[in-house]
Amino acid sequence: MFRKRITLAAILALALTGARAQFNTPVYLDDSKPLKERMEDALSRMTLEEKIAFIHAQSKFSSPGVTRLGIPENWMTDGPHGIRSEVLWDEWDQAGWTNDSCMAYPALTCLAASWNKDMSFLYGKSIGEEARYRNKNVLLGPGVNIYRTPLNGRNFEYMGEDPFLSSKMVVPYIKGVQLNGVAACVKHFALNNQETDRHKVDVEVDDRTLYEIYLPAFKAAVQEGGAWAIMGSYNKYKGQYNCHNQYLLIDILRKEWGFEGVVVSDWGGVHDTRQAIFNGLDMEFGSWTNGLSWSRSNAYDNYYLALPYLEMIRKGEVGTKELDEKVRHILRLSFLTTMNKNRPFGSFGTKEHSDAARNIATEGIVLLQNKNNVLPIDFTKTKKIAVIGENAIKMMTVGGGSSSLKAKYEISPLQGIKNRVGTQAEVVYARGYVGDSSGNYNGVVTGQSLADKRSKAELLEEARNVAKNADIVIFIGGLNKSDYQDCEGYDRTSLGLPYGQDTVISELAKVNKNLVVVNISGNAVAMPWVNEVPTIMQGWFLGSEAGNALAAVLTGDVNPSGKLPFTFPVKLQDNGAHALGEFPGNGQENYKEGLFVGYRYSDKQQIKPLFAFGHGISYTTFEYGKVSADKKTMTATDKITFHVTVKNTGKRAGAETVQLYISDLKSSLPRPVKELKGFEKVQLQPGEEKTVSITIDKAALSFFDAAKHEWIAEPGEFEAIIGASSTNLKSKVAFTLQ
Amino acid sequence: MFRKRITLAAILALALTGARAQFNTPVYLDDSKPLKERMEDALSRMTLEEKIAFIHAQSKFSSPGVTRLGIPENWMTDGPHGIRSEVLWDEWDQAGWTNDSCMAYPALTCLAASWNKDMSFLYGKSIGEEARYRNKNVLLGPGVNIYRTPLNGRNFEYMGEDPFLSSKMVVPYIKGVQLNGVAACVKHFALNNQETDRHKVDVEVDDRTLYEIYLPAFKAAVQEGGAWAIMGSYNKYKGQYNCHNQYLLIDILRKEWGFEGVVVSDWGGVHDTRQAIFNGLDMEFGSWTNGLSWSRSNAYDNYYLALPYLEMIRKGEVGTKELDEKVRHILRLSFLTTMNKNRPFGSFGTKEHSDAARNIATEGIVLLQNKNNVLPIDFTKTKKIAVIGENAIKMMTVGGGSSSLKAKYEISPLQGIKNRVGTQAEVVYARGYVGDSSGNYNGVVTGQSLADKRSKAELLEEARNVAKNADIVIFIGGLNKSDYQDCEGYDRTSLGLPYGQDTVISELAKVNKNLVVVNISGNAVAMPWVNEVPTIMQGWFLGSEAGNALAAVLTGDVNPSGKLPFTFPVKLQDNGAHALGEFPGNGQENYKEGLFVGYRYSDKQQIKPLFAFGHGISYTTFEYGKVSADKKTMTATDKITFHVTVKNTGKRAGAETVQLYISDLKSSLPRPVKELKGFEKVQLQPGEEKTVSITIDKAALSFFDAAKHEWIAEPGEFEAIIGASSTNLKSKVAFTLQ
Repeated sequence: MFRKRITLAAILALALTGARAQFNTPVYLDDSKPLKERMEDALSRMTLEEKIAFIHAQSKFSSPGVTRLGIPENWMTDGPHGIRSEVLWDEWDQAGWTNDSCMAYPALTCLAASWNKDMSFLYGKSIGEEARYRNKNVLLGPGVNIYRTPLNGRNFEYMGEDPFLSSKMVVPYIKGVQLNGVAACVKHFALNNQETDRHKVDVEVDDRTLYEIYLPAFKAAVQEGGAWAIMGSYNKYKGQYNCHNQYLLIDILRKEWGFEGVVVSDWGGVHDTRQAIFNGLDMEFGSWTNGLSWSRSNAYDNYYLALPYLEMIRKGEVGTKELDEKVRHILRLSFLTTMNKNRPFGSFGTKEHSDAARNIATEGIVLLQNKNNVLPIDFTKTKKIAVIGENAIKMMTVGGGSSSLKAKYEISPLQGIKNRVGTQAEVVYARGYVGDSSGNYNGVVTGQSLADKRSKAELLEEARNVAKNADIVIFIGGLNKSDYQDCEGYDRTSLGLPYGQDTVISELAKVNKNLVVVNISGNAVAMPWVNEVPTIMQGWFLGSEAGNALAAVLTGDVNPSGKLPFTFPVKLQDNGAHALGEFPGNGQENYKEGLFVGYRYSDKQQIKPLFAFGHGISYTTFEYGKVSADKKTMTATDKITFHVTVKNTGKRAGAETVQLYISDLKSSLPRPVKELKGFEKVQLQPGEEKTVSITIDKAALSFFDAAKHEWIAEPGEFEAIIGASSTNLKSKVAFTLQ
Repeated sequence: MFRKRITLAAILALALTGARAQFNTPVYLDDSKPLKERMEDALSRMTLEEKIAFIHAQSKFSSPGVTRLGIPENWMTDGPHGIRSEVLWDEWDQAGWTNDSCMAYPALTCLAASWNKDMSFLYGKSIGEEARYRNKNVLLGPGVNIYRTPLNGRNFEYMGEDPFLSSKMVVPYIKGVQLNGVAACVKHFALNNQETDRHKVDVEVDDRTLYEIYLPAFKAAVQEGGAWAIMGSYNKYKGQYNCHNQYLLIDILRKEWGFEGVVVSDWGGVHDTRQAIFNGLDMEFGSWTNGLSWSRSNAYDNYYLALPYLEMIRKGEVGTKELDEKVRHILRLSFLTTMNKNRPFGSFGTKEHSDAARNIATEGIVLLQNKNNVLPIDFTKTKKIAVIGENAIKMMTVGGGSSSLKAKYEISPLQGIKNRVGTQAEVVYARGYVGDSSGNYNGVVTGQSLADKRSKAELLEEARNVAKNADIVIFIGGLNKSDYQDCEGYDRTSLGLPYGQDTVISELAKVNKNLVVVNISGNAVAMPWVNEVPTIMQGWFLGSEAGNALAAVLTGDVNPSGKLPFTFPVKLQDNGAHALGEFPGNGQENYKEGLFVGYRYSDKQQIKPLFAFGHGISYTTFEYGKVSADKKTMTATDKITFHVTVKNTGKRAGAETVQLYISDLKSSLPRPVKELKGFEKVQLQPGEEKTVSITIDKAALSFFDAAKHEWIAEPGEFEAIIGASSTNLKSKVAFTLQ
C-alpha cells in the first residue's frame, strides 16, 4: 500500500532515475570493475529471500536469477556428450521442442582414447557453442571419475583409468567450453566410481590413493582448466554425502585448491540442510518434485537450501556468512556467463560440429589387433562385405541415463559402411543376435526396427550363411545403453559380452577367416575368442557420426591412431579393485587396492592384460629410436627433457602416441612400477622420422606423502621409459634427482 | 561423407580457425560496423534454406535463427499489458513454468487516459524490462487501432479514438520498450477496428480518412517511435489481406514512411504464398499447428513462407530478391535485439514495476461525475462502506484473448479498498448480480469463488440491504473479459451493461444517496441511470495493482487526473460508425462515416455525449485564463505558440490536462469542427497558477488531400481552442496561416 500522493514530478523523477541509471551504471553491472568488487556490490543489494532463492532450483534444470537486479536465471544442461533436449518445467519428459536436436559427440572414453589435446579443445569448443546457442550457461560435464572397475556402468562418460591422461585431456575441454561464456561443471566430485548403491555407498580410501589417483583430474580441471563449476557426487566419503562433504569441498577444493567457482549438487544429491550450509555446497538441484508444482504449492520451496535454511536463519540458528559465500560464487558464475556481454552467440548442430564429432571419433577408434592385415578393407579383393551384429543398426545416442541425447541425426555403422562402400562392393547384413528387441528406446524409434523375435539359432544360422559367402565379415557388437550395460544407475554384472555374442563371434570365425570384430562400448569386455579373430577394433559410443567414422577407419580413409585409456583385463580378477578391493561394497566400500588401479595393478602383479593401457596399433608401422635425456641429473627446481625419434616405416601416413612412463627405482614408500607422466601424438608421412621431446619437472617424480600431507619428490634414481603402450616399452634412460 | 584423410595438422588448423575467428571478427558480428554492412555480410553467408527458415515460425511464438552463424532465435511474446506466460512448444496451453508470473499493467486505454507521455515511457520501459528478462526479443504491442465503435471487443488494448492523442502516447511506449533491446511490434496494421469477421472483413475507407484517422498513430510509431517491428492485421483492405497488403505494407509503410523494420503477420493472418512474397510480409506466424508436430512431420514446413516458397524459388517461378529483403529486415532486428551486446539484462515483476503499474493506473482513472462531493471518501463521516458488484472481486488480468496474463498477483478492488480502509471504517460486500459464475476462468482460480448460484432477486435484495445501512456505497461493475464483452475474437452486442447491472444501480441509488459507480471496462457503456447516481468513475482494466489504485483514488490519496481517450455516447446511434457507417459489415464494410469518428461526429452533429472525449474531473477545481498566441499570423515554415494560465482554485493538489483543439474556419474540403493538436498535463498545488504553452506548426493545420495524395495546410483563418475537454471549451484565439 502507498498512502502518499504521487505527484507528476515524483513520477517524472522516477522515470528519470531509470534513464540516469544507464549513465551511472551500478558497480555490479560495470564490467570494467574487478569481479570481486562486482560480487560484493550485487551481494550488498540482495535481500535474504533473494539469496535463498538464488541457491536452489526452480525447475528441473534452472535456478532463479535476481529479477529485481536484472541478474539472469541459470540454466543447466546435461552433457557431457551433447546438449540435452528441453524437458518440461518440472518433469523429466521432453518438452516436445523441435529446435533442440543436438550434435551427439563421441563418448568421453573415445576422446580420451585420442590422446590428442587438440581434439579435447575442439570437443569443448563445439559442445560449448551448442550450449551457448541453446541459452544454457552451465554444461554438466565433463566427467573425470577414474575407471576403477570395468563394471562401472558410467565409465563411458569418463576419461579412463589414468590420472595423468585424464588431467591432460580434461583441461582443453573446459577451456573450449568456457570460451563460449558457458561454465563447464566438472563431475562427479569425487570417488563416484560405480553406480551400484551410488546414493549410499561410503567410500574408504587412503589419503595417498585419493590424492594420487582419484583427485588429480579434478585438480587439473580446477587449477589448469579454470572450471567455473563442479558437481558433487551422490556417494559418501568419510560418512558425509559428497554434495556437502567438508573434507572434499571445504578442505581440499576450496582451501587446498583455491576453487572460486560454484559447487552444484548432483540431482537429488543433497540430504541435509545443516551440512549443505556448512560443507561447501552452493546450489541444490533435483531434490524432489516431478510434476508436483503443477497442482500443488511449489515443492522447490521444500529444498534443503530453501525454506528450511531460511527458517534456520530467521530463528537465529545459523548466520548468513555461508549464505553470502554461496551467493558470491553464483554471482561470479553469472558475471562470467550470462552477464558476460562479450561472449559469442554460439552455434548449433552445424557442419563444423559434424566434422568435429567425426574427427574426434576417428581419432579415438582403437585398432587392437590386425593379423594378416585384414583391415583396411581392400576393395581390389573385396566384392562382398558382411556386416553382422545388432550394434550395426542400434542408436547409441539414446539411453544410458542423463547423457542420453535427442540427436540431430545418428549415422549407424551399417549406414556409414554402406554410404562409404557405395558400388565398390556389396554390403549384406545379418543381425546375429538380439539384445534390445523393443524396437524403440526412450520413446525414440530407431531407424531400423529392433523388434526381431526370431530364435537365437535362426539368427545365428542366418549370420553364418551371410558370413560364409562374404569376402570380409565385420561383426559390430559389444555393449549398449540399456540398464546393467553402459548405463547410468546400474553397474554391469560381468565382464563378458551380453546376448550370447561370444558364441556368434566364435561361429563366425569358423566360417570366415577375414573376421573383424568391432566392439562398441565404453568399457573393457572379455574376449574369449581373441585368438580366433584376426582383427579387433574398439569402437566406443561414437555419436552422430558413428557410422561415418567407423567406415572411414575400416576402409583406411583414416588410419587409426587411438590408444586405450584403460586396461582390458582378461578376466575380472585381473583388475585390482576386484582382486584386492571391495566392489560393489555394502554401504561401506574399502578401496583396498589403493594405488593399484588399471595398469598399476597389472604391472605390480605382472599380469598380461588382454589389451594394455596405451595400446593401439596402426595400418602403418613405427620404429622408435633410443630415448635420451638432456641431462643425467636434475634438481628439484629443474626440468628434464627426453628425446626419442619415431619413424613411419610403413606405406601409409599415420599417427603415433609416444608415451613416457616414469619409474622410481627406490622409494621410501612403495610406488607403482611406472606411471604415465608425458605423451605426445605425432603425425608421420611414410618414411618420415621425427624427434619427439617430452619435458617433465619434479611433479612427475612425486608421490603424495599422507603423513606429511604433501607431495614429495625423493632424491635418487629414476627411469624414463618410452613406450608405444604401457606394455610395449621401447627404451629407457636413467636419471637422478638431487 | 568425407573421403579424404584427416591429418592432425588439418585438425589443428581447424581448431585454430576457430581461435583465429575470434580475432578476425566477421563483419556481421562486428558491432563497430554499420548495420547495413553487417546485414549484407550475414545475408551473403546464408543459404537459401536458412533464409526460408528465418522467415517463419518454428513454434507458437518463436522462429529460428541461423544456427550455423550464431544468429539467435527470435522469441515473441504477447503484450501489450504484460509478458504472456510460457506456452507449450506447439500448443496454446501454458507450459506450467513457475518463473513467468508477470506484472500486469493497466490496459492501454487507461494509459491513454493518463494523457501523460512520461507514463507511457514508464510503461514501455517497465514492460520492456520484463520482456528482456524473460528473453523475449519482440513484444507484440502496443496496439493503436482507432476506437471506431464502442462495440469493438478489443478496444481496451488500444489508445482511444483520436489519432493525435494515440500518436503522442504510442511513441514513448516504444522508446521505453526498445531501450531494453526488445522490439516493440506495433499492431494491428491497419483498419482492424472490430473483432466480428476479423478474418474476412474487407474494409472500404476513403484515402483521406485512412491517412487522417487510421494511420497517424502507426506513422508516429514508425517514424517518431522508431518501432523495429509492426504486425499486419487479420482483415482485408482493397481485397487483400493486410498481412500481405501491397497498399499498406509496400506503398505506405515502406515507400512513404521508409520503414526498415520487420513486418510480422498476426497469428494465422497469412493466406497466400505469392502475396506474402511480394506484398511486404517478413515473418509468418501462427498459420497452423496445434500439437501436430508432436506426432507428425513438422507442420511449420507447410507455412506459406516455408516449403511452398522454397519450391517456387527452386522451380524458378519467383526470384530471391524479395526473400533477401525479408531476411535483411529480420537481421536488422537481430542486431538491434538479441545481438546487441550492450542491451541491459531486464528485470521482472519488481517493486518498481508494481509502482509503475499503480502509478499509471491512478493517473488513468477518470472521475466522470462527482455531485455533492461524494468522493473522496471522508472518513470523518464514514463508518461503513458498502462495496457492491462482481467486478470488485473478479480477476481482470485473465481472459480477453491474447492479452490474458498469468499475473504475479492481482489486487482486487475489494481487497484494495479493505487494505486501504483498514480500521478506519467497516467494509461490507455484496455481489449484487452474477456475471461469470464459473468460479474460475482460463484455468486460473480466482481469489474469491465466483460460483454463486443465488437468484437475481436474492442477490439484489442482499445488495439493497447492505447499501441501505452504509454511509457510502461503491458499486464496482462494468464489463469483463468474457466473450462478447471486452475480449478478443468477439464484439459486444450492445452498448448497455450486461447482467442486469442497470437495475441494480438504480435500486442502489434509491436506497443510498452516496452512491459511487465505478465502471470497469475498456469501452464506453450506456448509463441510463446517470442522473440518479451522484458519482461515476471510469476504472478501466487496471492490472496487478487495480485494487490499490482504485482505493487510492476513492480515498483521495491520489487526486484523479485522467481524461477520457474516447467519447461515451448516450446511445449507439450517437456514434458515427453506427449512425452513418457500416458495422459490422458483411464481409465488405464501408466506413461511410469517414473522418467523423468519436468527437468529430458529436461535434459535427452537435450531439451531447454522455461524457465527452477529453473529459475528466478532479477533487479540486481549475480556473483557466484566456488563451493568447505569440503571433497573429504564421507562415508554412513557422511555428505558433499558445499560452494559457491554469490555476488550482481548490484545496487539494491536482493535475489538469490542458487540451488544444484547432478549427479550420474555411477550407476547400469539409473538415471536422475541431481536432486535438496539442495537450499538456500540469500539476498544481492549491492556489498555484501556471502558464501552459503549446506550440504547433503547419502539420497541425493540415488535412490530407486525397486527390493530390499529400498533406495540405491551406492559408486562411484558424482558431486555437483551449478546452478542459472536447466539450468544456475555455477560450479561443484566431490566427492566420499565410
